[in-house]
Amino acid sequence: MTDKNKSGQRQEDPARTRSPDPLPSWNEGRTKNAIREFVTKVTSEGGPGSVPTHERIAVFDNDGTLWSEQPFYFQGLFVFDRIHALAAGHPEWKDTQPFKAVLEKDLKTLASAGLHGLLELVMATHTGLTTEEFERTVKEWLSSSRHPRFNRPFTDLVFQPMLELLAFLRANDFRTFIVSGGGIEFVRTFSEDRYGIVPEQVVGSSIVTKYEVRDGRPVLVREPKLDFINDHEGKPVGINKFIGRRPIAAFGNSDGDLQMLEWVTAGTGPRFGLIVHHDDAVREFAYDRASAAGRLDRGLEEAPGRGWALVSMEKDWKVIYPFELEQEVT
Amino acid sequence: MTDKNKSGQRQEDPARTRSPDPLPSWNEGRTKNAIREFVTKVTSEGGPGSVPTHERIAVFDNDGTLWSEQPFYFQGLFVFDRIHALAAGHPEWKDTQPFKAVLEKDLKTLASAGLHGLLELVMATHTGLTTEEFERTVKEWLSSSRHPRFNRPFTDLVFQPMLELLAFLRANDFRTFIVSGGGIEFVRTFSEDRYGIVPEQVVGSSIVTKYEVRDGRPVLVREPKLDFINDHEGKPVGINKFIGRRPIAAFGNSDGDLQMLEWVTAGTGPRFGLIVHHDDAVREFAYDRASAAGRLDRGLEEAPGRGWALVSMEKDWKVIYPFELEQEVT
Repeated sequence: MTDKNKSGQRQEDPARTRSPDPLPSWNEGRTKNAIREFVTKVTSEGGPGSVPTHERIAVFDNDGTLWSEQPFYFQGLFVFDRIHALAAGHPEWKDTQPFKAVLEKDLKTLASAGLHGLLELVMATHTGLTTEEFERTVKEWLSSSRHPRFNRPFTDLVFQPMLELLAFLRANDFRTFIVSGGGIEFVRTFSEDRYGIVPEQVVGSSIVTKYEVRDGRPVLVREPKLDFINDHEGKPVGINKFIGRRPIAAFGNSDGDLQMLEWVTAGTGPRFGLIVHHDDAVREFAYDRASAAGRLDRGLEEAPGRGWALVSMEKDWKVIYPFELEQEVT
Repeated sequence: MTDKNKSGQRQEDPARTRSPDPLPSWNEGRTKNAIREFVTKVTSEGGPGSVPTHERIAVFDNDGTLWSEQPFYFQGLFVFDRIHALAAGHPEWKDTQPFKAVLEKDLKTLASAGLHGLLELVMATHTGLTTEEFERTVKEWLSSSRHPRFNRPFTDLVFQPMLELLAFLRANDFRTFIVSGGGIEFVRTFSEDRYGIVPEQVVGSSIVTKYEVRDGRPVLVREPKLDFINDHEGKPVGINKFIGRRPIAAFGNSDGDLQMLEWVTAGTGPRFGLIVHHDDAVREFAYDRASAAGRLDRGLEEAPGRGWALVSMEKDWKVIYPFELEQEVT
């Protein structure tokens, strides 16, 4: 692993481009201009919109904002795989929701169970595991499983334009945080390698852990008890709890990010809000109002009036995934 | 406020000394040597104990470790002042513990109510306040109240040798976190100015907050409900939740820090644990096993066997408070 500077970020930012344009995968246009103008304003020392570096905090949703989330949240697919793997020892799951829906691959029922249903599945499949055992399980799954459409590891499906945006902000002394509805310990297993975001800069949903000394060795055991849901109204709460200061920029893609965008952009001074709209069925997926994962409805209505940038993946992004760049080279 | 670098730390570290010795307020001896040797080992690139910068995390208890905690935790004194200020509107407090004990200045009963009792008082006096209103209330108190013995603002009573230690670690690419049993939002009101520790690097006890939009303006309201107690077994839990990686150095002063020290020093590679022993009744306070605040019993017994450094404030520290240095100059 490469070295990191004091913020925990890699000194060689993995997402930094060699191009003179810090955002080479973004097409020229209104969105790209808005990003550049915001960063210029914030970093103009002595200028009217100048923001001191310690207040330059940007928050990013993960699912659908930094990587894909179809056909379903990737952590959901991980949990479903765990349910299938453990089903032989749990005959009762065949008749109990939401387990039944998983075993029958009934995505519609699962979607209606929502994040709460997902978390119930998470808790049921991970009771009694230590945090280290859980990390190992996730990492094994991430390295062995493949996305059903792209037949690639899920961590290949991060968005190249967003990697460039993370690097651009960090190069301008921003600290970049993930604020995810997903499980904090799940996201932390890959955020450092894929995004250059260290564990302490990941905020997410969590279950209760308990400190125990087992045979003289201290461990943290994951309990089957919900601690915090970091979604919708929970996102500003999580931001206040973990970061303790209002960020100046927020990036999301679904109505689960609405309150985060609202909280961040309601502050004084320069603010930036952005919503990624998934409108590219050819290169990624096209979905919004009716989607089981990443439903975007109110955000789509309200973005223009609230001054939030709306990214069209089809029109604004030259490239979706990093592996497209590799293919160009070969 | 001065500028900060990417980690959120001040570029001009407020605690950095101009002396060639980075720890001028520490007397030469075993403890000072142990600190220096640990930092040298960790930062020797390619050496057997070398630790990459992104893993250089040090955690500090606050009360009794970074500032004084007698005659009682300063946040406790703040809460007592709030109870007195609000008592006229709450006649029922005269007959209800732990309020009765506060109004009667019955420290013994308060001590036996412990952290839970304190938090009950915190919650009772802050229901319905927004996070911004709470911050203002704390800051007003910190600027207007005085320590009963030293007749100085409480924030004057930080430990000069620990400020130097924080700066020394940061100069060696450590990220320094507070991991306090005190309220996270209380500590954050002064941690940046006094210690150079940004809000996101403060972990502490918390109450539940709720997101609301009031007259079109989003706020976070502090609810009368406990969220998390970051003390004893809670400290490793809080570290895992907020930092997500095991630190390599831990600094405490009471049995409430025991599990944090245990968790940190049980990791592989170079580890450092240190306990501040309050044995200087002349310049600060002398207390350990029988104290209401900052009780140190098991830690005193076990420190030598576990390889944790034990600081004698009387013998190891040339200076206790920063204001002693000002007095030397004049």
